[in-house]
Amino acid sequence: MKRSDSKYALIVQQALQMANSIGLEAVTLGTLADGIGMSKSGLFAHFKSKEALQLAVIERAVEQFRADVVLPTLAAPRGWPQVQALFAHYLAWLGGEVQQGTCFFVASSQEFDDQPGALRDALHQALDDWRGFIARLMAPLLAAAPAGEGNDAEQFAFDFIGLTMSYQLAHKMLRDPQAEARLRHAFAGLLQRYGYLPDA
Amino acid sequence: MKRSDSKYALIVQQALQMANSIGLEAVTLGTLADGIGMSKSGLFAHFKSKEALQLAVIERAVEQFRADVVLPTLAAPRGWPQVQALFAHYLAWLGGEVQQGTCFFVASSQEFDDQPGALRDALHQALDDWRGFIARLMAPLLAAAPAGEGNDAEQFAFDFIGLTMSYQLAHKMLRDPQAEARLRHAFAGLLQRYGYLPDA
Repeated sequence: MKRSDSKYALIVQQALQMANSIGLEAVTLGTLADGIGMSKSGLFAHFKSKEALQLAVIERAVEQFRADVVLPTLAAPRGWPQVQALFAHYLAWLGGEVQQGTCFFVASSQEFDDQPGALRDALHQALDDWRGFIARLMAPLLAAAPAGEGNDAEQFAFDFIGLTMSYQLAHKMLRDPQAEARLRHAFAGLLQRYGYLPDA
Repeated sequence: MKRSDSKYALIVQQALQMANSIGLEAVTLGTLADGIGMSKSGLFAHFKSKEALQLAVIERAVEQFRADVVLPTLAAPRGWPQVQALFAHYLAWLGGEVQQGTCFFVASSQEFDDQPGALRDALHQALDDWRGFIARLMAPLLAAAPAGEGNDAEQFAFDFIGLTMSYQLAHKMLRDPQAEARLRHAFAGLLQRYGYLPDA
């Protein structure tokens, strides 16, 4: 049983790596079987359908995101250091071997945003959780801010997600060597707009 | 000849609509034939391969983008009104019937950024042209700005693309009713950071 569990985990991990390279939609029982040198019937013992396989991949990505980004961010000192940790861990996630420059959730949402169903729902949930997580980190920092510009944690999350998406496009598609510098510049400006004062 | 040309144009237009719904990668001679009720051999008279068809779709999208976004922006009065026209026309493009909330180029780049070849090159070119167009519109407005924050037209383009990508995710994937308001808020802030002074 234990052994079967770890085999299952290994297969899902390989499927996630495939998804990051060819897109989640293209990960089927057939392409995965070819990709990892396993029989389709062997895979079928673990996943009863393409959708079940793809859902398992999303769940695995959520677990990995939690381990690589969410938990280390929560372990950082509260306040601005935590927001900076969020940025650093998300950037490491984007640059990791598995992601290869794009966020699994952002990339997959382009594929499934038009297709109602369990996969879209799971991606929606993951992205909504991510947005909510960013906003909840910021909210206490903004509670003391004056009304008006720079006191809306949801807007911060919108802005933060935007600059990280622009980075993914610049880095991965445009191969812009300045992509990371532009992202860091944009993030520093974002923090200052929301009240962060760098050490004098 | 004329008639054959307009038939070709109609087929490519239908293929572009399909691409916006199921993704460019999934638009093949087979799926297009099924989708528009034409024989695969009839399509083959126009396109010798899936890649030729997909390239024709990208070219069509570039033409449409030029007609819907680039030319109307260039026709607007120079300076800040032109930057505001750029925003308005791009937003209309995203919300148009064909795009249905996502930019064809951004969505397709997620599919092809990992796949070297003519399709990736064509998308790279289109997105690079777009980024360059934004930066060139801004450059004269920033020439007089003081050095430091808010005087880098390339950074403006990076920031602008980011907020429009965040909007697409919020609107299309998260179905956030606040998406457009957040985009407009972010854009107004962006303009001000780069020196725009709203009428008092």
